[in-house]
Amino acid sequence: MQSVSVFAPATVGNLVCGFDVLGFALEHPGDKVRMELNDSGRVSLDLVEGDKGRLPREPEKNIVSAVVNNFLKYIGTNQGVGIRLYKQMPFGSGLGSSAASAVAGLVAINELMGQPLSREELLPLAIDGERLSSGSAHADNVAPSLLGGIVLVRGKNLNDAVKLPFPRDLVCALVYPHIEVSTRLAREIIPENIMLKDAIRQWGNIAGLVAGLCTSDKALIGRSMEDVVAEPLRSGLIPGFNCMREIALENGAIGFGISGSGPTVFALCDDKARARSLAGLLRQSLDERGIVSSTFISDINNEGAVVLSGKPHMV
Amino acid sequence: MQSVSVFAPATVGNLVCGFDVLGFALEHPGDKVRMELNDSGRVSLDLVEGDKGRLPREPEKNIVSAVVNNFLKYIGTNQGVGIRLYKQMPFGSGLGSSAASAVAGLVAINELMGQPLSREELLPLAIDGERLSSGSAHADNVAPSLLGGIVLVRGKNLNDAVKLPFPRDLVCALVYPHIEVSTRLAREIIPENIMLKDAIRQWGNIAGLVAGLCTSDKALIGRSMEDVVAEPLRSGLIPGFNCMREIALENGAIGFGISGSGPTVFALCDDKARARSLAGLLRQSLDERGIVSSTFISDINNEGAVVLSGKPHMV
Repeated sequence: MQSVSVFAPATVGNLVCGFDVLGFALEHPGDKVRMELNDSGRVSLDLVEGDKGRLPREPEKNIVSAVVNNFLKYIGTNQGVGIRLYKQMPFGSGLGSSAASAVAGLVAINELMGQPLSREELLPLAIDGERLSSGSAHADNVAPSLLGGIVLVRGKNLNDAVKLPFPRDLVCALVYPHIEVSTRLAREIIPENIMLKDAIRQWGNIAGLVAGLCTSDKALIGRSMEDVVAEPLRSGLIPGFNCMREIALENGAIGFGISGSGPTVFALCDDKARARSLAGLLRQSLDERGIVSSTFISDINNEGAVVLSGKPHMV
Repeated sequence: MQSVSVFAPATVGNLVCGFDVLGFALEHPGDKVRMELNDSGRVSLDLVEGDKGRLPREPEKNIVSAVVNNFLKYIGTNQGVGIRLYKQMPFGSGLGSSAASAVAGLVAINELMGQPLSREELLPLAIDGERLSSGSAHADNVAPSLLGGIVLVRGKNLNDAVKLPFPRDLVCALVYPHIEVSTRLAREIIPENIMLKDAIRQWGNIAGLVAGLCTSDKALIGRSMEDVVAEPLRSGLIPGFNCMREIALENGAIGFGISGSGPTVFALCDDKARARSLAGLLRQSLDERGIVSSTFISDINNEGAVVLSGKPHMV
């Protein structure tokens, strides 16, 4: 195979009480990468589309070309590769944009090279990409984008990825307010030390959330979707957050929270029609504040990144 | 019914990474309470046996009579009750001794009064008993003693008790070194603030532990049984702790940890013969340090406290 196209999905990271360790993949939006082997002996970024010119074009700075370069070094080859990145999701939105690009690039080059690595083995390379992109290593976006589903990343290096069972009728309403929230600022707002009693409440919550997901207990999922660590600080960066939370919970959402470090917020529902009408209500509440927003409705994507080979018309 | 006997089991609280929120019930040891209604209009503690005279005899200070008194106030009666407490487990051992006594008392009086409260409704009264006994409200011993199984206690007041699924072949080897560790000291050694990165690792671990329990993934249970918050501090109060951990993990234990605030330690196994031989090895390692110890081998008790009515010979 000399060329391949890959789609990697957007993700909801920092899943409420699962700060840094829980995330899930969406069906859409996401990023697409088209990649071709060539004889140049180097990695070139031939096209970046859909980013309004905001992403770096230098192969060593753009996350896709950077992770592909690392992959090739890791497997020990100087194979030449040409990359085209089709950015099909907002970035700086809290939807794991850099993760989707990195994962699409890694899955594509792995496919072209005959799958020398498993998806799990690609994870540390994707985490390195996140470090390059955001300045800190985290895995709660790359792991679900790579593996699909709701993924727990745990252990010292957060690279022990565990796909959790979940009720299959979960559906997600997302609203992305078109405001700028710096990932770095959203990270720095969280103190280095937290109160033990808050930590205990948080790990009681994540334990409840995981138990609820594993046993399809939606009431337990709902009452465990409480973040006493990051959300109280980060919600202040999102205008109308508390109002949107109230709207979501009053209109049948199982739970509500910030996606990643925001500003996108999401409501977890178990009914697509309800998710759709809820997204409309949330968008309207932002309209009333003069804030333009985009909405997405998505099931939880249990497959993760997919190779679109033989469907070149899709890119 | 005018008299009743109740057995309430010992428990392993602070289940490794589940500090304050996870515990499980043992088949044995445990406490027994025999209780009779009478016309005295007051709660009397007629007998305390098996405590070598160390527990308070004043009805307002002994935890059993205190929780029974609170129960009667709560349901609004001045019914007279005579209580006999048969202490059949060590206390100050980290096995939830006060919890077992409180639960036995509450289940007995609830039974005698015609079960006005459910087991779940008894939980807050049992937590109040723990506050009386240890100076702080915690629920990770009373909840499993009351409800059986492996129980998650979560939420603001730690009284949302969730029984978790677990692999039914789990068996526990416990070793109680006969040394004194004050619950209060073991509590005070834990700081009020912890590092966020430790908290993240801890909630990644509890999430993995719960997922492993729910999906019967023993490898995941094992690698998630890591406590980076309490154990590094409390293990210093238990002579030979690190040596015992090594022995346990080298001899096929799934995981190893401190029971409650110690000094009892436990190894989780999936084979009774292995648990038995492991308990012997752990005991021997303490012997070599000149420390006398008791061992217990127990399945996880999924029933919790039981009414022994009609079996008065058992007390």
